[in-house]
Amino acid sequence: MPKYDVLCIGNAIVDIVTQCDEAFLKTNGIIKGSMDLIDSNRADLLYSRMGPAIEASGGSAGNTAAGVASFGGRAAYVGKVSSDSLGEIYTHDMRAQGVAFDTKPLKGEPRTARSMIFVTPDGERSMNTYLGACVELRPEDVEADQASGAKVTYFEGYLWDTTPAKEAIRQTAMLAHAAGREVSMTLSDSLCVDRYRDEFLELLRSGTVEIIFANSHEIRSLYKTASFEEALDAVRKDCNIGVVTRAERGSVIVCGKETVIIKATDITELVDTTGAGDLYAAGFLYGYTSGRSLKDCGDLGSLAAGLVIQQIGPRPWQNLRREAEQAGLL
Amino acid sequence: MPKYDVLCIGNAIVDIVTQCDEAFLKTNGIIKGSMDLIDSNRADLLYSRMGPAIEASGGSAGNTAAGVASFGGRAAYVGKVSSDSLGEIYTHDMRAQGVAFDTKPLKGEPRTARSMIFVTPDGERSMNTYLGACVELRPEDVEADQASGAKVTYFEGYLWDTTPAKEAIRQTAMLAHAAGREVSMTLSDSLCVDRYRDEFLELLRSGTVEIIFANSHEIRSLYKTASFEEALDAVRKDCNIGVVTRAERGSVIVCGKETVIIKATDITELVDTTGAGDLYAAGFLYGYTSGRSLKDCGDLGSLAAGLVIQQIGPRPWQNLRREAEQAGLL
Repeated sequence: MPKYDVLCIGNAIVDIVTQCDEAFLKTNGIIKGSMDLIDSNRADLLYSRMGPAIEASGGSAGNTAAGVASFGGRAAYVGKVSSDSLGEIYTHDMRAQGVAFDTKPLKGEPRTARSMIFVTPDGERSMNTYLGACVELRPEDVEADQASGAKVTYFEGYLWDTTPAKEAIRQTAMLAHAAGREVSMTLSDSLCVDRYRDEFLELLRSGTVEIIFANSHEIRSLYKTASFEEALDAVRKDCNIGVVTRAERGSVIVCGKETVIIKATDITELVDTTGAGDLYAAGFLYGYTSGRSLKDCGDLGSLAAGLVIQQIGPRPWQNLRREAEQAGLL
Repeated sequence: MPKYDVLCIGNAIVDIVTQCDEAFLKTNGIIKGSMDLIDSNRADLLYSRMGPAIEASGGSAGNTAAGVASFGGRAAYVGKVSSDSLGEIYTHDMRAQGVAFDTKPLKGEPRTARSMIFVTPDGERSMNTYLGACVELRPEDVEADQASGAKVTYFEGYLWDTTPAKEAIRQTAMLAHAAGREVSMTLSDSLCVDRYRDEFLELLRSGTVEIIFANSHEIRSLYKTASFEEALDAVRKDCNIGVVTRAERGSVIVCGKETVIIKATDITELVDTTGAGDLYAAGFLYGYTSGRSLKDCGDLGSLAAGLVIQQIGPRPWQNLRREAEQAGLL
């Protein structure tokens, strides 16, 4: 029996979250709704202009791992922090959630990664990430038995921003496939797709990745089309399962000729969209690795995403297993 | 004209906030609703058992300073952090809120103080504080022109846990009074009152403190009485203004023969009581230093307290000035 349900690999980032108005984004040249990589100088400048904030462990695949564990799945995480206060906080939050997290922290500089997240009144988040220690994630950080011992490996497109991490993913995928496991990824961000379109397509078409997660912007960016339907048709050919989220319009799952339409859950108030896609993936992967139908996987994803966007921060406070049981999904 | 409306002095603490059930408190010997001082070993043990958390700048008087600034008041803060990541975060959050905060950070150990706050489903918070750098707050950390340049100086009873901080307060009060200013304090916590009852009474009776803030437990503890009315009568004699909060029952302000009854604001959901008393004091002191009636001061306090308890963390996300204007209080 595989040791883990889901192995998540990504940039280990502490989120620094504040609220701001639209004018602040404009004045500071922040791209709304996206993730911008920034250097240490820009990080210092933006922080000096940022309002009071809260800190929370984040990182896309890290949020997904935490979500899988909160559903009761066996999750492992690989990501690089430094051995500083924020790194300790990050490690604590992962392990406290029940995620196996044993990546050796970096000694000294660069520091643990941080992302300044500006949440506008419409709930949209704009992320400014200083990658710090994440650039040191290397192939040797993924243990061979992790790669071969997880039903599904899941990684972020964001990892393509650092060369050794790419190598780590390619090696992990090879080991996973050799053990008969599946590999999945998220396209992460439409600007990230822009940066690595050809490589991402190659990952799908070469069979390195069997399950892809994306939102409607990212999937259209991948196939350079304005048509959602066209993008869906393309992804249907390029991988086994395509999972595409569409914010308040719910999500669509395609698998061969099958198409499953999932409704978004009703929410009371949209507070902060941070983590929506990550938590959708968590619900889906928990369902998938526990042998449920695509419809059930999608509903679990929707539930988790619906919860996280009604609060500040990238990971839901609630126990997702209990929430899913109460909603009659488990 | 005084440079500041309110100078707040207190333990500069980063809050580490999680949710837990009642059983967790019992198993770990945590005193519900109170603040427990812990050493570094106990801090490590509790943290290892604590669930995933978020971090937010806190500290009782720090929360009050942030609240005064959010109302549009001119606030200054004195508190000791170390020059580590959490200290940088603390400093950022203060300054970003518009609070003048220039206390020199400690170089090296002990680290910036942290308080592990466990929030139970009833919204009550139980705090476990490792004081770290706070024990190094000394008289020379308060500038003479800060002490004499603020309409009201406000400090925490919690400061009595560290001897040099006590000295800092006595000196500040002397300078403030020499400049014709007023001095106020919060009793902080009923166990804290238990530790320093005689000294706190002496502060009031000697005229070192003119305005006192307390909740109904603390004020009854101060006078060792089970009767709220008896405690009110006693505090009426011992200082110029007594401000006593009573959770959902609102608050009572006594000033000589005058008694002002303030209703609690209506809330939708009690999430986390952290910061309730601190934010009440912020609203009151903002009103007081801008020359409003005791009734108006109390209503501003109630508004701010009502907002902070409906969210996770010790300081409200909202701009308090805007909220007060919308509520017709400013």
